[in-house]
Amino acid sequence: MAEKFISERNIRFMLYDVLDAESLTKYDYFSEHSRETFEMVLVTAMKMATELLHPVFREMDRNPPVYENGTVKVNPAVRKFMRECGEGGWIAAPFSAEHGGQQIPNLVMGICRFIFSAANYSGSVYPLLTTGAAHLILSFGTRELIDTYTPKMFSGEWQGTMALTEPQAGSSLSDVATTAIPTDKGYYNIKGQKIFISAGEHDGADNVVHLMMARIQGAPAGVKGISLFVVPKLRAGDNGALVGNDVTCGGIDHKLGYRGSPICQLYMGENNDCRGFLVGEPHKGLSYMFQMMNEARIDVGLGATAIATAAYYEALEYTNERPQGRLITEKDPAKPQMPIIGHADVKRMLLFQRAVTEGSLGLIMYLAKLTDLSRVVGEEEKERCELILDLLTPVAKTYPSEMGILSTSSAIQCLGGYGYCQDFSVEQYFRDMRIHPIHEGTTGIQGMDLLGRKVIMKNGKAFALFLKETSGTISTAKKYGSLEKEARALEDALKTLQEITAHLTGFAMKGEIDRFLSDATLYLELFGIIAVGWQWLVQALAAETKLQSGASSKEGVFYKGKLTVFRYFFEYELPKIEGLAKVLHNTSGITLGDPVDIFAD
Amino acid sequence: MAEKFISERNIRFMLYDVLDAESLTKYDYFSEHSRETFEMVLVTAMKMATELLHPVFREMDRNPPVYENGTVKVNPAVRKFMRECGEGGWIAAPFSAEHGGQQIPNLVMGICRFIFSAANYSGSVYPLLTTGAAHLILSFGTRELIDTYTPKMFSGEWQGTMALTEPQAGSSLSDVATTAIPTDKGYYNIKGQKIFISAGEHDGADNVVHLMMARIQGAPAGVKGISLFVVPKLRAGDNGALVGNDVTCGGIDHKLGYRGSPICQLYMGENNDCRGFLVGEPHKGLSYMFQMMNEARIDVGLGATAIATAAYYEALEYTNERPQGRLITEKDPAKPQMPIIGHADVKRMLLFQRAVTEGSLGLIMYLAKLTDLSRVVGEEEKERCELILDLLTPVAKTYPSEMGILSTSSAIQCLGGYGYCQDFSVEQYFRDMRIHPIHEGTTGIQGMDLLGRKVIMKNGKAFALFLKETSGTISTAKKYGSLEKEARALEDALKTLQEITAHLTGFAMKGEIDRFLSDATLYLELFGIIAVGWQWLVQALAAETKLQSGASSKEGVFYKGKLTVFRYFFEYELPKIEGLAKVLHNTSGITLGDPVDIFAD
Repeated sequence: MAEKFISERNIRFMLYDVLDAESLTKYDYFSEHSRETFEMVLVTAMKMATELLHPVFREMDRNPPVYENGTVKVNPAVRKFMRECGEGGWIAAPFSAEHGGQQIPNLVMGICRFIFSAANYSGSVYPLLTTGAAHLILSFGTRELIDTYTPKMFSGEWQGTMALTEPQAGSSLSDVATTAIPTDKGYYNIKGQKIFISAGEHDGADNVVHLMMARIQGAPAGVKGISLFVVPKLRAGDNGALVGNDVTCGGIDHKLGYRGSPICQLYMGENNDCRGFLVGEPHKGLSYMFQMMNEARIDVGLGATAIATAAYYEALEYTNERPQGRLITEKDPAKPQMPIIGHADVKRMLLFQRAVTEGSLGLIMYLAKLTDLSRVVGEEEKERCELILDLLTPVAKTYPSEMGILSTSSAIQCLGGYGYCQDFSVEQYFRDMRIHPIHEGTTGIQGMDLLGRKVIMKNGKAFALFLKETSGTISTAKKYGSLEKEARALEDALKTLQEITAHLTGFAMKGEIDRFLSDATLYLELFGIIAVGWQWLVQALAAETKLQSGASSKEGVFYKGKLTVFRYFFEYELPKIEGLAKVLHNTSGITLGDPVDIFAD
Repeated sequence: MAEKFISERNIRFMLYDVLDAESLTKYDYFSEHSRETFEMVLVTAMKMATELLHPVFREMDRNPPVYENGTVKVNPAVRKFMRECGEGGWIAAPFSAEHGGQQIPNLVMGICRFIFSAANYSGSVYPLLTTGAAHLILSFGTRELIDTYTPKMFSGEWQGTMALTEPQAGSSLSDVATTAIPTDKGYYNIKGQKIFISAGEHDGADNVVHLMMARIQGAPAGVKGISLFVVPKLRAGDNGALVGNDVTCGGIDHKLGYRGSPICQLYMGENNDCRGFLVGEPHKGLSYMFQMMNEARIDVGLGATAIATAAYYEALEYTNERPQGRLITEKDPAKPQMPIIGHADVKRMLLFQRAVTEGSLGLIMYLAKLTDLSRVVGEEEKERCELILDLLTPVAKTYPSEMGILSTSSAIQCLGGYGYCQDFSVEQYFRDMRIHPIHEGTTGIQGMDLLGRKVIMKNGKAFALFLKETSGTISTAKKYGSLEKEARALEDALKTLQEITAHLTGFAMKGEIDRFLSDATLYLELFGIIAVGWQWLVQALAAETKLQSGASSKEGVFYKGKLTVFRYFFEYELPKIEGLAKVLHNTSGITLGDPVDIFAD
């Protein structure tokens, strides 16, 4: 296993050179912070990742959680990491001081989550889920709920979860059937079953607080009848001591990867004694949950980026050390073999991985900064930030997840036969990656969200803002001779995107909604390449600026390397939109046909 | 786990309607055969696959081979299957009667290998490797070698292997270092180490016969000094009984997938008592091995196709049964959910899998027929067959392997969260698949083979023959109005291929060999899409012909389904060449740069 799992140099480039994290500190909300506090946070995150998470990365995969009589035994590192996150204030860090947080920009916290996920994705999700669940309670819960649950969640003693999925309600949330029966005692009786609940039960925490979707008895059918509840594993009994809340873990699923975190089947109310506490208003659960889900979706993209990044560094280390073959032009077999990083095809595979991972990181960090800005800027600017954020969330979830499969596969390929063996970690990264196009909304769902909702919302306002933003970057880049070619290529790509968008929305306007959305997944793929291409142009601008302002020779090598990867993206990745555009323009509705006719044999 | 792992209907379509297997029986060599004997073979293969291999598909993955003190314990089904293959004549079946075979066309045998591999890829390789190893002995070995080894191999009692790889010699075969020291007793003393040897040691066979590459003491450096040896695990002792031959298995590797077959580390001559028997002439080992390797490469493509096919049938079954969501146009959440196969995006994923797998199968079966023809036709036609076979071997190895990763990934996606869990088999197919772009020559090696060797050999004669062949299909297809659009699209694609080929060979002519080959992998990808597109046109022609000649309504559904998948390929897959062509035309040599500059940070 390679020791290196991320580039600290690149993180700082993204944070300071590209996204100017320090500029946030001029706003009141972030004014307690400075580059120095950011650095303290980053250094501590690296230390925790290196000392706590990375050493158990493989162990947590080889010895996954074990289910026994309703409890789930996880690696002891989980408890240790949760408590350390609690003690260090990590779980509450992004929240306001009033809520016990440190008001650290999400931009900086995002980089920390990236570090944790790259070190050990399964390990990183425990506190992350807890932060997300606490965020929901803080945003929509009563004072009492906040006071009862968040302190122990912030201290890392209690686990938070997001409990949506049921056997019959996976992608189709409108079919959630878990029931909440009102009582006159301030709580609801919960009855139902949930599946695939990450960290839904484990011995690394003293309690588990489920943020659960359920349907109040008599509620309307569909998503308009879903409410949000806090359903703890243990609740306060009459004398204040914790007692069981009739939430039973019925088992865990054995998975391809992501094995260090149990996904649990939960049964609520088997003994008619499961209490749920309503969060916010009845029937508004889905809109509340979507606050958390949008964060979670971006975090999925971030996790995918992190896994692919760690795989890249393992491939990089191996290809630098493994001698095999000679240059094509070297015919003398008596000459020593060369490290395989010298072969063009290996360099291509490494460039591909860098192009995907650093491009994805750029997109996600940009969105993190938008979340920070939307908190501190005026109304109009806030709307701008939120619209772009909404638009790009499915893209930031999906591009890293889908491309991450190819990127980690490419890392395996760099190691050849060794990559297929468990002596190295690339095979685990490949397995860990595969969950990302599935959880928190499959790629198919994301495509429909992008095209069917985000692109057309407010008469295309978000889409227009995106075009404006990207055009701004293009104008700036054109002033640099060295970036002009790529700036023009992106300009053309945006035209293609607009044409395809108009072509597809044309179906919607004709009322052909099924046709409009039938290839939404491919539209999302097209959009993703262009959005990441844009982010590469942004990074190239930052690198070029640094070079022109006279970077040291050591720094110069870094910036020039960046520019090489940037060029790689535009030469090798951006052209993929040609085929996609052709498909999206020409498809004749094959996928709308009757499956009985197509798949009979 | 779905019961169905292949389509018997499709197999017969390929065999009889597309490739006219019966036409082979007009040649003397195959004249003992008829559709009836083919059917007997197929029915038996299905029976063996269903009763012996498929039931242990998951078990062999969950309980992989165990190494203990030099021996490797495999699932008992391995011995059973090997013996049954032996008794049924399967291992020798493709060979001539003179060699104990049944002269069954490779086209039919290929389908049987496809059936076995789809049922249980790991299980299928044991007899397959034995056939390949025996083929080498038959082709180049002395009468004595043939008589000593092939009978027990044919009976399934002895395992055959292909022993090339060493720790320092994976892709770089010229660095093979295992030594053969001549003696005056008719054998060589072998000393060295091999790694990654599939089925290199196991208790499912009574002996293992390694077809091993080694260097005779004093041989020239590089590939010109490699010889081929038979190195058995046990050899005949003085009294004829078998004694150890100083071949020790030092361990097996734990792998991502393909777990039912052990890949072994072997040490030869640790006690200076390992005897090897020269096959053919000294220093010609690589050319001999390449006979087996080319077969093996096509079989890798076949195995990949088979795995992806089985994954497709599991996805098909699941999507037909899993209710989730409603049509986009259905707004009433009280309506029952529909099977997800009704969603356009799910149909797209299933069509993708069929397009990849049935297209790949077409290409591979076409090559199998060429091997049959090359055995029976006159000199000129034989050269034609062999040239096309040589040209398309890297394509038939790589397209199914690389696309198989995406296809099995797509099968996982069809099952959503369940696809990521081990309750279903798609996750195993995804893992089993990942070896194929690696073993028997990585994709990078295949790309260089295609562009650097096959396309330019004999002044491009093979390439010209390929163009002639495809153009023939296009001319015929144009006569059918319903296929004309796709025929023209393929015609354009061939022009693109020719342009790109000319562009790249231009570098070779200028002596820029590194530039010529730097993107050979992408050239191979481009070539693969076009070759498979051609095969889809071939299949469409057969289906259309059947339809026009008045197929029954049940059969009509099958042929129409075929045509739908064919159209899908041309609408969704062929356009991928647009981006690839642009890349191949425009790349500026980024991957030839100094890695120190690119990958520093």
